[in-house]
Amino acid sequence: MIDKNYSKIVMKFGGTSMADIEKISKVADHVEREFKNGKKVAVVVSAMSGETDRLINLVNAIGPVDKSERDAVISSGEQVSSALLALTLKARNIPATSVQGWQIPLRTNKMHGSARILDVKSKYLDQLITKNEIPIIAGFQGITEENRISTFGRGGSDTTAVAIACSLKADLCDIYTDVDGVYTSDPRIVEFAQKISKISFEEMLEMASQGAKVLQTRSVELAMSYNMPIRVRSTFAENNFEKKNKTINIGTIVTNEDNILEDKVVSGIAYSKNEAKITIQNLDDKPGVAAQIFGNLAKEGVNVDMIVQNISADGKHTDLTFTVQETELKNAKSILDNLKSQINFHKLIESKDIAKVSVIGVGMRSHAGVAAEMFSTLAEKGINIQAITTSEIKVSVIIDSQYIELAMRALHSAYGLDKKK
Amino acid sequence: MIDKNYSKIVMKFGGTSMADIEKISKVADHVEREFKNGKKVAVVVSAMSGETDRLINLVNAIGPVDKSERDAVISSGEQVSSALLALTLKARNIPATSVQGWQIPLRTNKMHGSARILDVKSKYLDQLITKNEIPIIAGFQGITEENRISTFGRGGSDTTAVAIACSLKADLCDIYTDVDGVYTSDPRIVEFAQKISKISFEEMLEMASQGAKVLQTRSVELAMSYNMPIRVRSTFAENNFEKKNKTINIGTIVTNEDNILEDKVVSGIAYSKNEAKITIQNLDDKPGVAAQIFGNLAKEGVNVDMIVQNISADGKHTDLTFTVQETELKNAKSILDNLKSQINFHKLIESKDIAKVSVIGVGMRSHAGVAAEMFSTLAEKGINIQAITTSEIKVSVIIDSQYIELAMRALHSAYGLDKKK
Repeated sequence: MIDKNYSKIVMKFGGTSMADIEKISKVADHVEREFKNGKKVAVVVSAMSGETDRLINLVNAIGPVDKSERDAVISSGEQVSSALLALTLKARNIPATSVQGWQIPLRTNKMHGSARILDVKSKYLDQLITKNEIPIIAGFQGITEENRISTFGRGGSDTTAVAIACSLKADLCDIYTDVDGVYTSDPRIVEFAQKISKISFEEMLEMASQGAKVLQTRSVELAMSYNMPIRVRSTFAENNFEKKNKTINIGTIVTNEDNILEDKVVSGIAYSKNEAKITIQNLDDKPGVAAQIFGNLAKEGVNVDMIVQNISADGKHTDLTFTVQETELKNAKSILDNLKSQINFHKLIESKDIAKVSVIGVGMRSHAGVAAEMFSTLAEKGINIQAITTSEIKVSVIIDSQYIELAMRALHSAYGLDKKK
Repeated sequence: MIDKNYSKIVMKFGGTSMADIEKISKVADHVEREFKNGKKVAVVVSAMSGETDRLINLVNAIGPVDKSERDAVISSGEQVSSALLALTLKARNIPATSVQGWQIPLRTNKMHGSARILDVKSKYLDQLITKNEIPIIAGFQGITEENRISTFGRGGSDTTAVAIACSLKADLCDIYTDVDGVYTSDPRIVEFAQKISKISFEEMLEMASQGAKVLQTRSVELAMSYNMPIRVRSTFAENNFEKKNKTINIGTIVTNEDNILEDKVVSGIAYSKNEAKITIQNLDDKPGVAAQIFGNLAKEGVNVDMIVQNISADGKHTDLTFTVQETELKNAKSILDNLKSQINFHKLIESKDIAKVSVIGVGMRSHAGVAAEMFSTLAEKGINIQAITTSEIKVSVIIDSQYIELAMRALHSAYGLDKKK
């Protein structure tokens, strides 16, 4: 694609891109380039990296926390970084104005610390853009109907950027970060992983294991609702921007499935090591037991991922295995221990030595055999599958964590994702 | 005076009082005490000490400065400190809410960095106070009519506190600082200096040499206009607050002259070492020369303090001596050098080895002999007077800076200000 098709863009820069005055100057280079190319530009920034942590530490040193005041403290990080970038641009005679959430205003509900956006007024931003002034917007924050500052939680600046892009009816939301795009798999594990030029919103959401580090999930959901294309690209990689009259493959575009012409069945191989497995041994095999177990877990907010139940050997007892996030293992066990008087089981066996590998691709919808290919590839390598889940565009399996790299490389190769050697 | 006469108060805490979480806890003690004594309270805070400098350094590292963006950066210091104090109070179950300039709103003109207050709305603050919630107000800042954050310049939180006190029709503005009041002279120089219990606004303004370190001049001027009493008191001194049913002499009250019953002729001895003297030698003694000199200095913003012109010996030439702030010496000299072609003089002689001593007291208005007493006291010690200025409530002299301590002690004693030994 040629970049000049995008005439109005939102550019978002994260904390590592805004880390110090020198890096902010590099960010200003990107903004200056787009502005001088005649684009209508709005910018969203995170706090300087480390600053939010410093502020959170101040708050935590006080004790029981009021979330509204906590938001007043930590939102100052973006106030500072947005004004520093505006200063940097103005020092180059590029008209720019820092804009805080309350100045837009960007209205949220009053769930301080994890606020949801209710409404983004575009009037003030439109005014600035119309008079050729670049709004430099403090990410991660808004104001409630009570006129109090609210924040969105970690990674919230991505969501701000997408929301601003939707409000301004921009053509694209460019997310500048420290990687140059989304890869077919984690390049630290899979040597031949390649950058994906285009990926659908749905796939991006499923790529969470890799993707969550690149884009906040909520921002992708929001972009999907409003059909706002996001491009993930690097702040620091050289030559990652368009040359005159030349089409260059910049970053990864996350967009509507319909805009993706390539007909790949599988787009990427994702993984997660943060899984834990619990087996309930010798459980009474009678109706209602599973409902009781998973109902109680859900009630306490424990998210169960995969469930495997073996066929009962004696018709009276069975083993039930399921996986949860590792951080929820302790909680899940204590819930089950409390249930022991109501449901009958021999004992609980836990394991953290498991990992999840997922094969993701919208092409699966119209292609059979993807799962079978996965199982046979793993079998060839002698890797045992402990549990399976599938969605329309994903097949995930739980395996012993020691095989995770082997599995990922084999699958990456089997689905033809390896870049040319 | 008994403190309980003040039913509605504004409490202001400076940067050293807000320096860290531990000190903020000490500040919260003061607020808690007043609140639990049934007072209606509003609080104004400065940024944590060092924070404003850190932010200014970030701004200065960028280069040519846009003052509106500079204000957006440095105002974040008070945003953080106000929310940290509110958090501290809430952790003690004392209802408190941080309030930024834009939330009040406190409107200023658009002189970013040295903005003047135009209007302070009391509605939101009144609402909070009425429902027994303590507003913790970020000092030093407001918003312009363009909805941009503005700041007042150094020491501006004192001005915020007085403005808020006036707007809320408070009974008193308590300025908590690192000294326990205003003294008859600088205690580091004059051993027997004593704390003044009450001082008039006019005297406080004249006590600038000592006073400016305690209270920002603008805040005193504002308090004088609205007849809002200010009390200067210590954040950290123990037992500096009222005991039940006991009258304790807390801090120094700065108030209307009419409220001061004591009939002291002289209230204090002030000094300044930041003076410089310029003598223009062998200047043409003709009409219009002085006007030309001081007109040009004024035009360039150089503030001339005292002027001494000797009688011309030959009727044609004279020596003209005047003093300026030491920081303005260089500027003043270059202005005069540029004038040399228009006015005729032999040369310029400068000296920084001078100091100003002032005797201050509203009682002078009705008492003769104050100046004479000053001159004879200095003469007794063999100290030569190089220049004199007087106002209704002040006599200032310029002397050789080596005699400054000797002069101050002698005068302090001569006017009966020494505390009982």
